[in-house]
Amino acid sequence: MNTGQMERLFKPDSVVIFSRYDDSQILSSRPMANLIFWGYRGNVYQVIVDGILWNGWEKVSALEDPPDIAMISLSPEESIDALNRCSAMAIPFVIMFSSLSVNQLPEYKDVLELAQSRGTRVLGPNCQGLANFADKIPLSWSSALDMDHPSDGHVALVSQSGDLGFSAYSMASDEGVRFRYVVTTGLSSDVDVVDVGHWLIEDYQVHMIVFYLEGLPEGRDFLKMVREAQSRGVSVAVLRGGVSPRLREFAAGRRGHGSVADEGVWKTVAKQFGMVLLDDIADLIDLGRIVDMGRNPKGCRVAVVSTSGGVGMIQADKCVSAGLDMAPIDPKSREILGKCLKEDGYLDGILTLDSQVIESSQHMNQVLKVLSDSPDVDIILVAVPVISAGAAEKLADTLIGASLSFYKPLVCCWLTDDIHGGHGAQKLRRSGIPLFDSPRRCADAVAAWVGAVKPCKKRELSCSPVSNPILGGYPDVLNGYEAACFIESYGLTPIRQAFCLDLDEVLAGGNDIGFPLALKVVSREIGSKKEARGIALNLRTEEELQNAYGRILERAVRSSPDAVIDGVLVQEMVSDGIECMVGMKRDPVFGPVVAVGLGGILYDVIKDLSLRLAPVDFPMALEMVESLKGYPLFAGFRGSKALDFRSLAAEVVKVSAMSCAEPDLVLLDIGSIFVTPGGVKIADVRVRKRGEVK
Amino acid sequence: MNTGQMERLFKPDSVVIFSRYDDSQILSSRPMANLIFWGYRGNVYQVIVDGILWNGWEKVSALEDPPDIAMISLSPEESIDALNRCSAMAIPFVIMFSSLSVNQLPEYKDVLELAQSRGTRVLGPNCQGLANFADKIPLSWSSALDMDHPSDGHVALVSQSGDLGFSAYSMASDEGVRFRYVVTTGLSSDVDVVDVGHWLIEDYQVHMIVFYLEGLPEGRDFLKMVREAQSRGVSVAVLRGGVSPRLREFAAGRRGHGSVADEGVWKTVAKQFGMVLLDDIADLIDLGRIVDMGRNPKGCRVAVVSTSGGVGMIQADKCVSAGLDMAPIDPKSREILGKCLKEDGYLDGILTLDSQVIESSQHMNQVLKVLSDSPDVDIILVAVPVISAGAAEKLADTLIGASLSFYKPLVCCWLTDDIHGGHGAQKLRRSGIPLFDSPRRCADAVAAWVGAVKPCKKRELSCSPVSNPILGGYPDVLNGYEAACFIESYGLTPIRQAFCLDLDEVLAGGNDIGFPLALKVVSREIGSKKEARGIALNLRTEEELQNAYGRILERAVRSSPDAVIDGVLVQEMVSDGIECMVGMKRDPVFGPVVAVGLGGILYDVIKDLSLRLAPVDFPMALEMVESLKGYPLFAGFRGSKALDFRSLAAEVVKVSAMSCAEPDLVLLDIGSIFVTPGGVKIADVRVRKRGEVK
Repeated sequence: MNTGQMERLFKPDSVVIFSRYDDSQILSSRPMANLIFWGYRGNVYQVIVDGILWNGWEKVSALEDPPDIAMISLSPEESIDALNRCSAMAIPFVIMFSSLSVNQLPEYKDVLELAQSRGTRVLGPNCQGLANFADKIPLSWSSALDMDHPSDGHVALVSQSGDLGFSAYSMASDEGVRFRYVVTTGLSSDVDVVDVGHWLIEDYQVHMIVFYLEGLPEGRDFLKMVREAQSRGVSVAVLRGGVSPRLREFAAGRRGHGSVADEGVWKTVAKQFGMVLLDDIADLIDLGRIVDMGRNPKGCRVAVVSTSGGVGMIQADKCVSAGLDMAPIDPKSREILGKCLKEDGYLDGILTLDSQVIESSQHMNQVLKVLSDSPDVDIILVAVPVISAGAAEKLADTLIGASLSFYKPLVCCWLTDDIHGGHGAQKLRRSGIPLFDSPRRCADAVAAWVGAVKPCKKRELSCSPVSNPILGGYPDVLNGYEAACFIESYGLTPIRQAFCLDLDEVLAGGNDIGFPLALKVVSREIGSKKEARGIALNLRTEEELQNAYGRILERAVRSSPDAVIDGVLVQEMVSDGIECMVGMKRDPVFGPVVAVGLGGILYDVIKDLSLRLAPVDFPMALEMVESLKGYPLFAGFRGSKALDFRSLAAEVVKVSAMSCAEPDLVLLDIGSIFVTPGGVKIADVRVRKRGEVK
Repeated sequence: MNTGQMERLFKPDSVVIFSRYDDSQILSSRPMANLIFWGYRGNVYQVIVDGILWNGWEKVSALEDPPDIAMISLSPEESIDALNRCSAMAIPFVIMFSSLSVNQLPEYKDVLELAQSRGTRVLGPNCQGLANFADKIPLSWSSALDMDHPSDGHVALVSQSGDLGFSAYSMASDEGVRFRYVVTTGLSSDVDVVDVGHWLIEDYQVHMIVFYLEGLPEGRDFLKMVREAQSRGVSVAVLRGGVSPRLREFAAGRRGHGSVADEGVWKTVAKQFGMVLLDDIADLIDLGRIVDMGRNPKGCRVAVVSTSGGVGMIQADKCVSAGLDMAPIDPKSREILGKCLKEDGYLDGILTLDSQVIESSQHMNQVLKVLSDSPDVDIILVAVPVISAGAAEKLADTLIGASLSFYKPLVCCWLTDDIHGGHGAQKLRRSGIPLFDSPRRCADAVAAWVGAVKPCKKRELSCSPVSNPILGGYPDVLNGYEAACFIESYGLTPIRQAFCLDLDEVLAGGNDIGFPLALKVVSREIGSKKEARGIALNLRTEEELQNAYGRILERAVRSSPDAVIDGVLVQEMVSDGIECMVGMKRDPVFGPVVAVGLGGILYDVIKDLSLRLAPVDFPMALEMVESLKGYPLFAGFRGSKALDFRSLAAEVVKVSAMSCAEPDLVLLDIGSIFVTPGGVKIADVRVRKRGEVK
């Protein structure tokens, strides 16, 4: 949907409301009440429905210009009927508040398809509509909207949950956070969060969009929108529901999508595309509070100002653990500050003021001026313990006055109760200075904000294959040798090896490769868990090789009597280097994700993996390798030679290209890739095709 | 100090206040103002000091019974003088508000010593005194005390920072949390947090003590008090300032202590002794809020009740990630609940109610009754999105009514603004139902509380040596061979090895042990970092051994020309098993801490260590080994034999005994202990004695 059409969803000239006679129901009377309370100036029509009686419908259907929007607050059956009627008269947007249950969806989807073909778009069902604060247009039944609200906010909230969206709005209002839009998409059956996002970024007053998501049908469409938003200077933050594994499928199901990305993939994607991942509704409000200020930090160096050593200390602790830096204060500035500080009152960007300074506007102004002038300070954080009500109010006035004289971000951690700090807090909030009552929340919000406004490299999103898929030519289930042949087609470097059908071939192959050797049973039925029994390592002589051949075949047959043995693989035995793993999996939401990490015993113990959405180029692959905990091992461990980790990165790039070219490749697990001083050697590969029964 | 004497600090019959003429200073007038505001019924004397004029002193010093407490709000010099005068007339407790700087401490300490010898005890200096809410006695200048406060709370707060203590109190008051005591100890120069803790646990109304700590002089005294508290059913929580490494020393310095325990040790100690570690002032308030309810959970199974799928989902997410379990609802209960739930409204302990149910007292009561009756539910968590003000108030009434009819803990996450939810929130708060405005804070507080009330094994604290120290008999700096001999005295199992002075001895020793062998240079001056050059591994023949001898000596001399070479160590070469590490370090606060973990390359990459305060017995050592990430490796990896990890645990117990017996042992690092199927073999030991220059 192009964003021009969406305009009518957010700024309708006329609205029709379908509701029931029974006005004890919130759903029935509230949409109209909200429109009236906000002084909506368009035309509003009301159709009252009670079973077969549709009071007012005749008049609406006789209109020459249909209303821009229909809001439907009816029973599920009636609302499906109403959608049908609305689309028949070409109403462009229908907002469906009704809650449909899973078994009502098939019928609904048929009517939706018809409606779409008639040019009607649907927000919902199971949503609470939207509120456009900029234009004072409420299209929702939420009871949160029956209060005053400013229209000049910079934060838009797009939520798949109606309750969560409007609860966050309502709590945020108390904190002085001004939302510009709240949009809830419910089942997102038609207009979804991506459509809404694309429209919102057209409004240059929107500085940040926060999404609450439970499921996404197509992750890459979402990422395209995110990239577009960032190119316009709009930051994106995401709060997710259904993070814990047991809740994940449930969350996706609720939103009508089959599956959701797993946690690791989300974290990877957020990092790769510069999104802030939020952890709680509180984070959403905190970030809104700080973005709403309209001042962006140049970096992450914070100066903490407090009259209390203890409070300053804990505030600084939280800053450091949130990943912020303490701003060094240059000696000259420190000299000027000196007379305002307590004795021994300076350490690493923590300024402990003499308690009389905080009550003196003149001194406080001086402190703030020095910090605002200092090129080493990006953010000024004033942490205030409980003080008398008079002192608190005076301090608030000073902070507000000072902050008007500079553009550097100023945030406040206000650790006091309502009686002592209430008036001051109110003044600060009104003036737009972000206010927190918890050092951790303050530090976390500042850190999230620094992350959100940080410019992000523009990442390639489309996986354009460089070659045609070849996986189709392989059997449905690939054995280890076929998997090795498959990846060889993509230029990956297998170890020296020979696929053998009998002992003669084994001995010939073994002598050709040279001792020591490894020997492995090849079978489609014997998975990696049972593999150990079908493997012999470190065979040093022809005799050992011969014995091992008989032994591993016998063991394999004993442990998996029904398995068909395709042959054996004789392999060079690698004795130097570090065992790593490279792989890919196709995430149901975000598509191919490539991985590199430590393999073998190290993988089992530490799960040290680095992930990226494909496509991955060489610099990014190198970045992946360098970000591993085990990266220092490549530099050469306790005197051993440096290992060729650049070749490992090169293999990652090949895996990325393969995952773009092979849509049926669901999983690639190169579980053993040895990184040696002279390059890499792949000893073990597993491939899973789409549709393969595990 | 016995707790009987402390009684007079908390419940004085009479008080004298020393302050200055200049009453613009908060310090001067506030202590008296607070006493008056709270209606203190004891005698109060006032001495006004201005340089050499001590107005009123004559009268006070003529008293037959000296006051129980003197509060001193004077300049540093005057306050030291006043302390002297107070102790001369045998006033038992002096509370020093004055801020002394580092260079005033020596003079102060002399006077303090004299005062102590006269039987006077000091709280502070650099503190804000204390407030005993139970008896309505404020002994503080804090402006936070000029408001009403209940006297029947169950939480005591002991803070080394005055500002932090009273800020936390003031913020907590807004949330309806009732503190029973707030005590600030400042520099803790005499009466410290341990003394205060011992006194507080005598009050059976105290259910929890929360400490804010920046430094501790003697960790084990603190732990004894914690153990004592727990035996009386009092939980202990700790918030620390100066957690980040750069702030750590600063924090300790501020409290007049030389050093603080590191983060890993604190975490270990908290786990071992059942303390809750808090991360923020907000956590302190949250936990207070929930403890204050006076109902303890039997377990960690939570039922989340909400009208909103999204809100219920995120609340459950936060519960799971805080470590709580979702309560399974038995089929019978679920059937009763059925008609109150939305369609598809049940999953794993998340109950999504039909929106009409939340407005119906009858239905809500039924839901709550089912949950309170269910033996599978330990905690009921009601998560409420924004609803109309009327509905919110009605719901609050229902919750309050229902909670009176059962004893199961009920907590509430109230996600709404003041206009819609304010009245309801106020009612809930007054009724003692813990209220949160963030799903994460709610879940974290519940989880902390479950952890706090969980019974904790009684741990041995005193390290009674089983033998006399022998470390004194060794040189100041031990070389690798001496270190091996030292630990052998404690029954630890070294590898087969021979200390040799020349090639003949090397060859003889080597043949005696049997090939393959390792060879190591022994020198006090060559540390482990340079060790690699002085080591040869995997020597298979006499010839290889001979060559290696020359090579490593030459290399050692080249890399450390000034080092004295004491000899070489010929060692058995271990080729099987897993390399681990065992060690101990003497923490400046908590004393000996023993460690076990993966060694060698694995240690370098994953730092997989398990720590415990000594003494450690065998079951605890086994628990340490089992808690390692790498523990699964001992079970036998990919077909290899199971390893004798019980022998590893046995070595940990020996190290523990050694660390108790050897007060001068500062560090023991058994960097290479191979765990094999047949036992353990120690290949590398480093020992550091107290006073050794590194």
